[in-house]
Amino acid sequence: MRPSGRHFLQIPGPTNTPDRVLRAMSAPTIDHRGPEFAALTRELLDALKPVFGTTGPVVVYPASGTGAWEAALVNTLSPGDRVLCFETGHFATLWQEMARRLGLRVDLVPGDWRHGVDPDEVAARLRADGAGLVKAVLVVHNETSTGVTSRVAEVRRAIDAAGHPALLLVDTISSLGSIDYRHDEWGVDVTVAGSQKGLMLPPGLSFNAVSDKALRAAETARSVRSFWDWRPVLEANARGLFPYTPATNLLYGLRESLRMLAEEGLSTVYARHLRHAAATRSAVRAWGLEVLCADEREHSASLTAVLMPDGHDADRLRAVILERYDMSLGAGLGRLAGRVFRIGHLGAFNDLMLAGTLAGVQLGLVAAGVPVKGSGIDAALERLQQP
Amino acid sequence: MRPSGRHFLQIPGPTNTPDRVLRAMSAPTIDHRGPEFAALTRELLDALKPVFGTTGPVVVYPASGTGAWEAALVNTLSPGDRVLCFETGHFATLWQEMARRLGLRVDLVPGDWRHGVDPDEVAARLRADGAGLVKAVLVVHNETSTGVTSRVAEVRRAIDAAGHPALLLVDTISSLGSIDYRHDEWGVDVTVAGSQKGLMLPPGLSFNAVSDKALRAAETARSVRSFWDWRPVLEANARGLFPYTPATNLLYGLRESLRMLAEEGLSTVYARHLRHAAATRSAVRAWGLEVLCADEREHSASLTAVLMPDGHDADRLRAVILERYDMSLGAGLGRLAGRVFRIGHLGAFNDLMLAGTLAGVQLGLVAAGVPVKGSGIDAALERLQQP
Amino acid sequence: MRPSGRHFLQIPGPTNTPDRVLRAMSAPTIDHRGPEFAALTRELLDALKPVFGTTGPVVVYPASGTGAWEAALVNTLSPGDRVLCFETGHFATLWQEMARRLGLRVDLVPGDWRHGVDPDEVAARLRADGAGLVKAVLVVHNETSTGVTSRVAEVRRAIDAAGHPALLLVDTISSLGSIDYRHDEWGVDVTVAGSQKGLMLPPGLSFNAVSDKALRAAETARSVRSFWDWRPVLEANARGLFPYTPATNLLYGLRESLRMLAEEGLSTVYARHLRHAAATRSAVRAWGLEVLCADEREHSASLTAVLMPDGHDADRLRAVILERYDMSLGAGLGRLAGRVFRIGHLGAFNDLMLAGTLAGVQLGLVAAGVPVKGSGIDAALERLQQP
Amino acid sequence: MRPSGRHFLQIPGPTNTPDRVLRAMSAPTIDHRGPEFAALTRELLDALKPVFGTTGPVVVYPASGTGAWEAALVNTLSPGDRVLCFETGHFATLWQEMARRLGLRVDLVPGDWRHGVDPDEVAARLRADGAGLVKAVLVVHNETSTGVTSRVAEVRRAIDAAGHPALLLVDTISSLGSIDYRHDEWGVDVTVAGSQKGLMLPPGLSFNAVSDKALRAAETARSVRSFWDWRPVLEANARGLFPYTPATNLLYGLRESLRMLAEEGLSTVYARHLRHAAATRSAVRAWGLEVLCADEREHSASLTAVLMPDGHDADRLRAVILERYDMSLGAGLGRLAGRVFRIGHLGAFNDLMLAGTLAGVQLGLVAAGVPVKGSGIDAALERLQQP
Repeated sequence: MRPSGRHFLQIPGPTNTPDRVLRAMSAPTIDHRGPEFAALTRELLDALKPVFGTTGPVVVYPASGTGAWEAALVNTLSPGDRVLCFETGHFATLWQEMARRLGLRVDLVPGDWRHGVDPDEVAARLRADGAGLVKAVLVVHNETSTGVTSRVAEVRRAIDAAGHPALLLVDTISSLGSIDYRHDEWGVDVTVAGSQKGLMLPPGLSFNAVSDKALRAAETARSVRSFWDWRPVLEANARGLFPYTPATNLLYGLRESLRMLAEEGLSTVYARHLRHAAATRSAVRAWGLEVLCADEREHSASLTAVLMPDGHDADRLRAVILERYDMSLGAGLGRLAGRVFRIGHLGAFNDLMLAGTLAGVQLGLVAAGVPVKGSGIDAALERLQQP
Repeated sequence: MRPSGRHFLQIPGPTNTPDRVLRAMSAPTIDHRGPEFAALTRELLDALKPVFGTTGPVVVYPASGTGAWEAALVNTLSPGDRVLCFETGHFATLWQEMARRLGLRVDLVPGDWRHGVDPDEVAARLRADGAGLVKAVLVVHNETSTGVTSRVAEVRRAIDAAGHPALLLVDTISSLGSIDYRHDEWGVDVTVAGSQKGLMLPPGLSFNAVSDKALRAAETARSVRSFWDWRPVLEANARGLFPYTPATNLLYGLRESLRMLAEEGLSTVYARHLRHAAATRSAVRAWGLEVLCADEREHSASLTAVLMPDGHDADRLRAVILERYDMSLGAGLGRLAGRVFRIGHLGAFNDLMLAGTLAGVQLGLVAAGVPVKGSGIDAALERLQQP
Repeated sequence: MRPSGRHFLQIPGPTNTPDRVLRAMSAPTIDHRGPEFAALTRELLDALKPVFGTTGPVVVYPASGTGAWEAALVNTLSPGDRVLCFETGHFATLWQEMARRLGLRVDLVPGDWRHGVDPDEVAARLRADGAGLVKAVLVVHNETSTGVTSRVAEVRRAIDAAGHPALLLVDTISSLGSIDYRHDEWGVDVTVAGSQKGLMLPPGLSFNAVSDKALRAAETARSVRSFWDWRPVLEANARGLFPYTPATNLLYGLRESLRMLAEEGLSTVYARHLRHAAATRSAVRAWGLEVLCADEREHSASLTAVLMPDGHDADRLRAVILERYDMSLGAGLGRLAGRVFRIGHLGAFNDLMLAGTLAGVQLGLVAAGVPVKGSGIDAALERLQQP
Repeated sequence: MRPSGRHFLQIPGPTNTPDRVLRAMSAPTIDHRGPEFAALTRELLDALKPVFGTTGPVVVYPASGTGAWEAALVNTLSPGDRVLCFETGHFATLWQEMARRLGLRVDLVPGDWRHGVDPDEVAARLRADGAGLVKAVLVVHNETSTGVTSRVAEVRRAIDAAGHPALLLVDTISSLGSIDYRHDEWGVDVTVAGSQKGLMLPPGLSFNAVSDKALRAAETARSVRSFWDWRPVLEANARGLFPYTPATNLLYGLRESLRMLAEEGLSTVYARHLRHAAATRSAVRAWGLEVLCADEREHSASLTAVLMPDGHDADRLRAVILERYDMSLGAGLGRLAGRVFRIGHLGAFNDLMLAGTLAGVQLGLVAAGVPVKGSGIDAALERLQQP
């Protein structure tokens, strides 16, 4: 039995899927080889481009985001290739572990999980690689485990400054559609994304936006690949088809969510996320708690990770909040387990949903006996009075 | 284009229909004369009884609540009959106007729209009617326009004390399924209800719970009636049928909402509404505003009407809140137009939805330039920390 | 447990609601006093007009069709008024019984339930009424119980030829949106309709299209009325409102179904129904069975009633078909009980659904041991090969 | 604009998703790391087993079926391993091409696309492989491109008779949930399946049922793998989790469809498919057309591929049927392009849907000018009169 009223799904994704998207998804499945489907494919492939900030192709996988990580690697790299990775958090760590499993050699820059990728470090590392052994730089744009957003444009400039030919592969799983992102302008080679965050869909779709340089790399890359291979997808897409059965009903939902983003306007969407993130940090500080992200330039607009005071367990807090207030918050992952909780404020969201969310955290902190300095909700509302 | 995130529908009904109910309603319509439908009818007619607190019949109309008002009158009364009405608010006023239109003579006890029905007045009026000319007493249990709940059990005792044979007709449109109610125990003769409040459905169904005494009155009542006539309905219901096409898909939703009420437990449901009403009043008082209801014994558990300070227009406030915070609040109705706004906290609701709601009011008051003494949301959260 | 696959709901209404309409209906309920709702009201009231063939007002009731019958009578007539009715079938009979219950005096022209209203009889009756005692002529356009469509345009001409001032009230419950109908052109005064047939919605909405003459009659009619009174509805509609809570989610569905009718085009819709009716009659005749309708000019385009051979019970056949083939057919009603079954071929329908339907009847006839002369399905397919 | 009525989606998958499943899928997404999700995972993993006929683990991928093919290969085999494949049709061909791309060596037994795998050939090939170089035998249980069902139990016996240790990998994408299948009893090592056929879901989920022997093979297999790796999935599943974000809403649909299969009973489901296939073949033969499958023991119960007469193009026929009768049929694939069309009669289906389907084919054949000998629909109905 579910408690009364709506559940607050405030993990940093999957997000609160709009009922409009859920209704779109509940239309009957159609023939994926018929003319109606071809029209859908073409509409989607066009409508995706502005969200990625690209005029190039976007490959859509009927698979969740982890698959699109794998696709980015196996399409562009060969076994034994060296990739430069940054330990910015749990998902960055998982991605480099995947790279190792796929036979790549990983140069890992360690990190404290409170900062994003350091563009200076990128420059230094690449300058040191005169032989051009590093084939790709892997960056997680928005670390879902820490609430830290790396400055991808600056990373790009660092690579350019080093005059290095490495590909730039960027994970935008928890930023795309929530945080300003520019695949073309920033010279990203592969952008990895998923459906269940800013795109406001359930999980089950993932994406690779692909630069010309990446397409060229794919021609020579020797990683074994079949399902993830871009080439048959791009070839079939040109005819409105997919090389294997697409996830039709999720594509219906995607059509609807892309329309919603276009209606609201991407710049409005990004501003909304920034404003909610600022209000959330106001609340956290008013409670006397610490935001995990340690660099003012890198606060995530889509989620906020909060450090628990010593002696208090974040998972117990989350359990209390789930039990008493029917809200799901994100757990601390990996080395942050038990030490942080994460508030998702992304996707289909608004001021009053945020207020309810922060009220739930505040009530939960009190109920769990975590010392609270002041009213976070008041601080947040003060921030929300401003545009 | 709708703004981002979920609309807060905080009028005192229709309420936020649970997605579970909406999904149930979206099943294909079935044959209303077939065996599957007959089973549905029987399940519903049984499951409705505990919500009304009756073991007697409940008549279901494929019509909104105003129709069930008419049904209560035309089934039990004859043209020229005298009925005792109380001006407790807008809907009580509409009901007695309807009675007049239907040819009844109305004894109207005036009121200030801040109090419920005075049981002593009931007793006095009926004692004065030695000839038994008053055929029915009409009471609105929970005045949706004022947030005042009349004490029906005490009204019953007053009628009994007067030894008067009048029927007791009660409107529970905004209380049923939200506020403790006992058709049988309180000796109510006709209970009028609708689908779109505590029953958590869209509008389109309405109800008459009917006592034996009311059934007997129906045998002699001479009001002209056809669509609203109980007799063919009760006769058809006995065979799992309706005398005319029922609103099948709303009945699907009703099945689901009755299951939800049973799962949560009616006493838990009632306690939840009382708690949310108390928290709302805490907020109102912290803002320095006045609750319309003037009697502590009569605060509604399903909605709170709030008086605006002089010089401030409630409708402007509501427009600001709708525009900026995507929340609908109830308008002041009739003589209260512009002077009050109403917060609905009934139906499928929970603490965080209430927090979002009250945050929206607080933000709106500030945005509309209404002077606010303190943080209502803080006061409400304090109340919500208690069970 | 439901059997595998889709149920065939081939009663003559409610019809197979399109999933597109069901999805539209499952959107969250909105404030019926807010601006979004006002826009919906205005869109609907405009979009309804062409379906009725009128430029005048259409009153929408949150109630099923029987209510709209009552509305037509109580808004235009006074107790004791004389109305001319025709016993064309079960629903014509129910309507005149309702008229009697509402205090009207009924001149009933008997009928054999196999013919529509005889325009000559209309002329004769009205000519005989030199005193103008007959205040209204009541015609069921398409008798859902018999599959006979009365020729309303000819009835109009008969009234005119008689120079009689009687109002013309027409029930189009099972024809509107399926069979060509012209409220204005045919000089109909009140057109009664419901949501659950050609409008492809679940039951729960009903309609009165109203002529100027009917509006004038409403000013002097003395029938007691409140819920059904047109005047407050028309007044509120002018502001995008309803005088009592409307059935919001059914209105969402109505918006969608009106869009579907407009997309297909009304003339295409009518032609489709005619074609399916012709194919159905081909099947019936090939089986060696008799169509109930006895006049070639009066075959209904929305349903076909079929006479059972002597010694065979239609309800047993229907039970066999429901049990074995998961299809609901219409029962014989009133004096036709057990003697006819009715095939609905209206609403959201197409050739292959009709083929499945007729296959189910054919299979059922065999399974029930009803003698069958030839293959009805073959005959129907032959007809369907033509446009 | 869609034509009136329901589209007939009679390709051999995706199938007509039941509205019950679509409604289940439209529930809000929940936290995939919370307790409610863990309970869902456990329910699903248990309920899947009987459908596969296994007591062992079933791995669920948030990806379409082609992914599960890849998973079966990379988890059990190493680059350079030899696999025995049979050219039974288009999908068998695609699977062996995938095997080649993944670095395996393929022994391909050619075929005429009208027969299944020949168990004698399996035995002969494996007997000839005294050195045990063949590591796996790949069989497509039901060839979706040809309507031929290979006799897996006999293949198993052939492997055993040869005393060969090769793994048996079986694709059941278009048979699972439609055609009797027994992973454990038949000694299958990996069963590959998808969501969009007999499981009645939209595409987007796929499955590997895994034997103990396959699990042991996975310990030593050296194919590079990450997303498809069984081990982290099985480990996470034990705690009710997935190693990456699962396709939550498709899992909701899976819960519903597994309940539907259990309610109907698997043996009833299989018998229903056999009966519909037999009726379809009766129709094909009555039309004077030829069923592609050339072995009476191997007719598919889930689809029927039909050969066009010389001089007639199957794709033109399909286009006519789509245009005039709003039905999608399957195209001839690969070398069968233009020469066959395929009728899907699987998933949520019943007699009248089949009748509508076959009527559509018959009407289409006439409309496209394909010579037709007799009434296929009559022949089919005759067959359907029998249980």
